[in-house]
Amino acid sequence: MADFTIGDRLKVTLFGQSHGPAIGCVIDGFPAGKRVDWDAVSFFLARRAPGQNAWSTQRKEADAPEILSGLNEAGLTCGAPLAAVIRNTNQHSGDYPDLLNVPRPGHADFAAGVKYGPAWDYRGGGQFSGRLTAPLCFAGALCLQYLAERNIRIAAHIARVGNVFDKAPDTVHPQFPLYEAGAFPVIDPEKGRAMQAEIEAAKQAGDSVDGAVRCVVTGFPAGVGGPYFGGLEGKLAQALFGIPAVKGVQFGDTQPHGSENNDAFRMENESVCTVTNHCGGILGGISIGMPLHFTVSFKPTPSIAKAQQTVDLKAMQETEMNLRGRHDPCVVPRAVPVVEAVTAIILTDLLLQGA
Amino acid sequence: MADFTIGDRLKVTLFGQSHGPAIGCVIDGFPAGKRVDWDAVSFFLARRAPGQNAWSTQRKEADAPEILSGLNEAGLTCGAPLAAVIRNTNQHSGDYPDLLNVPRPGHADFAAGVKYGPAWDYRGGGQFSGRLTAPLCFAGALCLQYLAERNIRIAAHIARVGNVFDKAPDTVHPQFPLYEAGAFPVIDPEKGRAMQAEIEAAKQAGDSVDGAVRCVVTGFPAGVGGPYFGGLEGKLAQALFGIPAVKGVQFGDTQPHGSENNDAFRMENESVCTVTNHCGGILGGISIGMPLHFTVSFKPTPSIAKAQQTVDLKAMQETEMNLRGRHDPCVVPRAVPVVEAVTAIILTDLLLQGA
Amino acid sequence: MADFTIGDRLKVTLFGQSHGPAIGCVIDGFPAGKRVDWDAVSFFLARRAPGQNAWSTQRKEADAPEILSGLNEAGLTCGAPLAAVIRNTNQHSGDYPDLLNVPRPGHADFAAGVKYGPAWDYRGGGQFSGRLTAPLCFAGALCLQYLAERNIRIAAHIARVGNVFDKAPDTVHPQFPLYEAGAFPVIDPEKGRAMQAEIEAAKQAGDSVDGAVRCVVTGFPAGVGGPYFGGLEGKLAQALFGIPAVKGVQFGDTQPHGSENNDAFRMENESVCTVTNHCGGILGGISIGMPLHFTVSFKPTPSIAKAQQTVDLKAMQETEMNLRGRHDPCVVPRAVPVVEAVTAIILTDLLLQGA
Amino acid sequence: MADFTIGDRLKVTLFGQSHGPAIGCVIDGFPAGKRVDWDAVSFFLARRAPGQNAWSTQRKEADAPEILSGLNEAGLTCGAPLAAVIRNTNQHSGDYPDLLNVPRPGHADFAAGVKYGPAWDYRGGGQFSGRLTAPLCFAGALCLQYLAERNIRIAAHIARVGNVFDKAPDTVHPQFPLYEAGAFPVIDPEKGRAMQAEIEAAKQAGDSVDGAVRCVVTGFPAGVGGPYFGGLEGKLAQALFGIPAVKGVQFGDTQPHGSENNDAFRMENESVCTVTNHCGGILGGISIGMPLHFTVSFKPTPSIAKAQQTVDLKAMQETEMNLRGRHDPCVVPRAVPVVEAVTAIILTDLLLQGA
Repeated sequence: MADFTIGDRLKVTLFGQSHGPAIGCVIDGFPAGKRVDWDAVSFFLARRAPGQNAWSTQRKEADAPEILSGLNEAGLTCGAPLAAVIRNTNQHSGDYPDLLNVPRPGHADFAAGVKYGPAWDYRGGGQFSGRLTAPLCFAGALCLQYLAERNIRIAAHIARVGNVFDKAPDTVHPQFPLYEAGAFPVIDPEKGRAMQAEIEAAKQAGDSVDGAVRCVVTGFPAGVGGPYFGGLEGKLAQALFGIPAVKGVQFGDTQPHGSENNDAFRMENESVCTVTNHCGGILGGISIGMPLHFTVSFKPTPSIAKAQQTVDLKAMQETEMNLRGRHDPCVVPRAVPVVEAVTAIILTDLLLQGA
Repeated sequence: MADFTIGDRLKVTLFGQSHGPAIGCVIDGFPAGKRVDWDAVSFFLARRAPGQNAWSTQRKEADAPEILSGLNEAGLTCGAPLAAVIRNTNQHSGDYPDLLNVPRPGHADFAAGVKYGPAWDYRGGGQFSGRLTAPLCFAGALCLQYLAERNIRIAAHIARVGNVFDKAPDTVHPQFPLYEAGAFPVIDPEKGRAMQAEIEAAKQAGDSVDGAVRCVVTGFPAGVGGPYFGGLEGKLAQALFGIPAVKGVQFGDTQPHGSENNDAFRMENESVCTVTNHCGGILGGISIGMPLHFTVSFKPTPSIAKAQQTVDLKAMQETEMNLRGRHDPCVVPRAVPVVEAVTAIILTDLLLQGA
Repeated sequence: MADFTIGDRLKVTLFGQSHGPAIGCVIDGFPAGKRVDWDAVSFFLARRAPGQNAWSTQRKEADAPEILSGLNEAGLTCGAPLAAVIRNTNQHSGDYPDLLNVPRPGHADFAAGVKYGPAWDYRGGGQFSGRLTAPLCFAGALCLQYLAERNIRIAAHIARVGNVFDKAPDTVHPQFPLYEAGAFPVIDPEKGRAMQAEIEAAKQAGDSVDGAVRCVVTGFPAGVGGPYFGGLEGKLAQALFGIPAVKGVQFGDTQPHGSENNDAFRMENESVCTVTNHCGGILGGISIGMPLHFTVSFKPTPSIAKAQQTVDLKAMQETEMNLRGRHDPCVVPRAVPVVEAVTAIILTDLLLQGA
Repeated sequence: MADFTIGDRLKVTLFGQSHGPAIGCVIDGFPAGKRVDWDAVSFFLARRAPGQNAWSTQRKEADAPEILSGLNEAGLTCGAPLAAVIRNTNQHSGDYPDLLNVPRPGHADFAAGVKYGPAWDYRGGGQFSGRLTAPLCFAGALCLQYLAERNIRIAAHIARVGNVFDKAPDTVHPQFPLYEAGAFPVIDPEKGRAMQAEIEAAKQAGDSVDGAVRCVVTGFPAGVGGPYFGGLEGKLAQALFGIPAVKGVQFGDTQPHGSENNDAFRMENESVCTVTNHCGGILGGISIGMPLHFTVSFKPTPSIAKAQQTVDLKAMQETEMNLRGRHDPCVVPRAVPVVEAVTAIILTDLLLQGA
């Protein structure tokens, strides 16, 4: 337990469950004196919001957060913890079966029952719900603005859906935006269309499909992180694995042999950089001043329309289950801003503590 | 900074640098009243030790740790922090060039120079040295014994070297030991020989090769971990990325479509388990009672004999570098017990805190 | 920064500022399956609430918290973070002068200006406001119920106001309640009346008065805590000093000589206890199974009606200040439940982590 | 458990037990590039060392620490964790009775037995031993040098022994050194002699006596700390209560009425300061730029020569105990540098994290 706080000097605490009154977050340690660009926050939250297109669940959300604290009369951040609340509306509780006693394969239901016992609020996945990535994105949106002031930019794209891979970005001189304006950020539009076809095919089959998000950070200074357990990879990974459905995190694009994988140092504009960037901008757990890049892989949505085998925990016997309801056949498109948000939170925390 | 401690209730703190007087660790929070099987500790440390065969550096280590505290007169753990020291001997400082001013590609040298400044003790990689995995394995060896008392077993094998993949283990009913007795743990001996050929080829070419370690844990109870930032994946990943050269961590073996990837629940011996185990024994960040399994990927050793381009930071100009010295052409064989050790430390910590 | 979270396995995060829209808290890690006694919560919050009598500020609060998450449909705690919000109403912003530029002596104004800069929301003391002890008491009220299930009881009384000392409780066999029903908990009612006279005198003089709260815990098991930095005293003290106006924490009632101060061990009902309890139930940082007791001292309310010397930070010159507004002439009476709440939170956290 | 680490960015981890092979510490996060003044370290450790005079135990210690890591070839701190070991010699194990079964009143014996069980190494108090303050002072000595570079000075004196109080220091313009050169640091030598008489009287009576240490810090910048749980008082207190025998911590010297206790702001040399310093240099949990000052109270040494009542835990019956051995009749004189050391560690940690 105590699973909903991340960060040291900047602490982000999430709260809520899928079918409770509200979800939200508390952001403690965000610098005072910042004017928030609320339009940018809204735009960022909209990128994560469901119901926008063919690829995502039709559940509508009114994700405009109410700010309960953290701003002064002039609307600047004031150093007090920033608390934001998003009311839950439009839940269809009736869509959900008795997940406590008949757990869905691939979902947290069974594990949650073991951990919390019968009081667990299984409706919509309770506190495991992807809904909580909305306040997480809210926190990330603020951090993105903090980082942008320091010319640090974060952008992610859909690196893969099923077997369709997007073109890899230039990780030495990344082009921004990596993604098109719109809800399906890819570098190569043709690959994007193939991915959408893959998602549509899965949907038609009552199935779902996996994928990956690649995230690129530019402008991050050299010297942040540390050896062993202070490594930048570990700090980012711990937070990224906190995103529902993430099963893998890979930094850089390791090449099989040292002679190809080692990034030769060179001079550019009188400063040191590397010719290639296979290391993902991190050596010895420490940033080297090159763009950071890493790939986060997501499992296919466990909610599928096909019949599945499970167990009835009351009867202690096997049974079959058919799920209904609105589900994303692929979580990856909506996960793109979530990856950016988590990255922004961790990098802001590290910069604030001078790590 | 403050990078060398991992764990909450069980805290393992490493210390040392490659060419200082000694390396070691402090283990705080290990349960009192345990009789350590020192032969098992020695055997475990020997699996990591260098100089044993053709695939590893010829540097000899006398890795028998001296115990400075933590045992009572009868030799039982007594609740005091367990401190262990391993003296450094057999360093060949002369083998190392001026890494502070001419950083090696792929190594921490440049990053360390930015972080620590000119006082950094670059000899042998300083505190970034893989040498510190020796005390880490010492801590892990104790934790493995603690876990074994609870019938929790951890075993890893070489999953990949370059393009050669070992046979995958049965992740529903794993066979132990996963690895042969010996220094090159694989499931399929033929694949093992092909991997060794790959390493030998890299060595002959003055090059190095990458790979991966797969780790399997049996007997771990259901209900440990939590949603979001309390997830088992994140806690393990943070520690695993602390191992030098790790660039990726993947849990389970995700299948592209939900219908294949979802592990159907079933009954076995009147308890709930799953038909497959693609989730790696973890759903919603929480263990489900099935074997845990995950794959840790390592980059190729950055130390290679081939000429490489780098920069002279004093002259601020590009230069060429030729490294000499004893280096593993592939870190993966010796990393196998390190992955087991780190896994043991984290799982012990979680069990001790009742998480 | 990141100052508003306390606890390890049970994490309580406060948010809000005095004149923002709302204050509240997030409680993560509270056990699932508990039915909250809301009447007991209300009664507990009412003990802290202002405006009840002659000794406290006349500001009215509608402190009934709204629960945003953490309960299931049946009203049981469900394992999700428990978020509670209390709306701010009845603020008289106009009562407060420009504290940013003319800081009040004894208040956080000057320090806050240095830490947060001009964006600090100084109205009502911002995030330093004692208002935030309302959600803190809410969290404490839940923990008190958790502890009561284990027969652990916490009660505090007003140990001192100015020079008037309450009778000391029996710390070997404490009588509960230590305090009368009512808003002025003392053991000796006569001393209580003298204290009230002291407060009234301070009020009449446009002044304020200091005091102390003594807290007693019964039923707490032996063996919790640890040596050095794991000590029970340190963990409690860190949290207790988080209460506004606390300047001292003293455990037990140390006697000058070892021969008097050492608590002789004895047998009672076939279990080990001590004859006296000068150690406050803690030896070597670890509970010994005797009642815990400690005294928390509070400074006099810095808000006084008398003229005071301060500086005008814009003009950088000394000036005189006259404060108006509603203030408690003594914070101690209302601090009693706050001390109980903080104690309950820390002890619950320790029990949950099996420390 | 996990009780021996303090600090966030600067982490100090102690290890050892009284009668094990060695004690020591690991200091992780200390800045690189510092040249340690080893004579100053030795002098500081000597202030804590026993056996120097009539007031302290006659046990001799060869407390010169061996440095195992953390220095480069040139002897500068290099960023690697600094590990120091002090060998245990001169233990008289025979002096100690069977503390596991017949616990000493006022000592940790009984509590340790509950926490660790029979494997606890009770000889000399095991890991509860004041011996571990030697490596703590070593860590503190380094931090004092770091702080001195920033013109931050820490000095403590014996504020009280039994009923004898030292003169209070000027807390607005403290005079350094607060203590005489020598092992008995007081401001008023006459009071010092009376304290020594008090200690000698306790010793002659086979008894012990309590006391207090006051610590003053000058040069500490304004703006460090935070409201609620980020308060400077709480962070210092948690660490100070880690010193064996500490039972109370008081910040500043609170006056009974707000009109006296509030420290009026004034201008001096064009900067803001206060006329008095009753707040101990801290308002709202944040430093205000005035000297910090606080008082740490110690219980009388529980080891006394007088007969005491205790219980025989095997027989479960009361018994009498007579202790022999070498004990300080008052821990306060030797605790003075320990208080300074702990203060230095916490303040260094806070400055390093930019808190």
